[in-house]
Amino acid sequence: MPEIVVLRWGHRPQRDSRLTTHVALTARALGASGLILTDIEDRGIKETVEKVVERWGGSFSFEMGKPWKTAVKEWKGKGGIVVHLTAYGENIETSDVLQRIKACGKDVLVIVGSQKAPREFFSEAVSDFNVAIGNQPHSECASLAVFLDRFFGGRELAKSFEKAKIRIIPQKRGKKTARDC
Amino acid sequence: MPEIVVLRWGHRPQRDSRLTTHVALTARALGASGLILTDIEDRGIKETVEKVVERWGGSFSFEMGKPWKTAVKEWKGKGGIVVHLTAYGENIETSDVLQRIKACGKDVLVIVGSQKAPREFFSEAVSDFNVAIGNQPHSECASLAVFLDRFFGGRELAKSFEKAKIRIIPQKRGKKTARDC
Repeated sequence: MPEIVVLRWGHRPQRDSRLTTHVALTARALGASGLILTDIEDRGIKETVEKVVERWGGSFSFEMGKPWKTAVKEWKGKGGIVVHLTAYGENIETSDVLQRIKACGKDVLVIVGSQKAPREFFSEAVSDFNVAIGNQPHSECASLAVFLDRFFGGRELAKSFEKAKIRIIPQKRGKKTARDC
Repeated sequence: MPEIVVLRWGHRPQRDSRLTTHVALTARALGASGLILTDIEDRGIKETVEKVVERWGGSFSFEMGKPWKTAVKEWKGKGGIVVHLTAYGENIETSDVLQRIKACGKDVLVIVGSQKAPREFFSEAVSDFNVAIGNQPHSECASLAVFLDRFFGGRELAKSFEKAKIRIIPQKRGKKTARDC
């Protein structure tokens, strides 16, 4: 199965702190291998994500501060493709864009930006595909979640995370956890 | 098709402002009919959501300030069922919980809370189903998105929004919109 890494662009410390944390935790929980917070550093988010990984297991990389152009260049240099999530792109439901992405069989760098994303993200130099999770304005966190769920065909929600200190035992009612360490 | 309304619990003004806005816009864009921000008021979010509805169309209700117990009681009084999204619940991928929810054929109130959600949310008095979008901690926004996408079988992303002043014409590259007013 190809690997997915998320590139988070346009993070503003404080204002976006919770949202970017949610984007990172969504990436991890829904099967991505890591997140690159480009062009800025935010130690609070890095710590939160690393604590979750330590406690809940699995491997998930968190990089920050790298310029987005460098991240894209390095990714393409390793033979990966780039998917830009944007409300303006091809609709994941009404077009065959997901099929075409999967047919590449390559690792995917998923760019999640914001309304103010640079025009360059749409260009061939950057994105191989511009994908819309519906053509309405909503949320990069929601878009990422639906993209990952559809890309991995739901299997990501069943996977177990190695070396977890704690895991949830699903219940109809109440909270149940097991400690494995 | 049954209707879905989202109940947002535990919103803290300022700290959660962007996140709750994203939850509301996700609800709208992915097919829910409205959102109830319980136990608190936040005029900034209400204004943002109403502006999006005015510009991008469709009908979407936004209520705030109602106590969550009242909202649940009123919903059940109208014959609807309640689904609580929580990492501790039945896994949407590995269990048949979604099938059982759909089999009810009833309108659904989806509760999205946070780690600090009251224990009562798990009880029979409140939730008919406790559903986990994977049993890992992540995001109420991501959980809501995947739940709506799976509940509506993807069709929500293809729907058109009535009386829109602006709509996106999906493109492989670049941004294209049409103004219909």
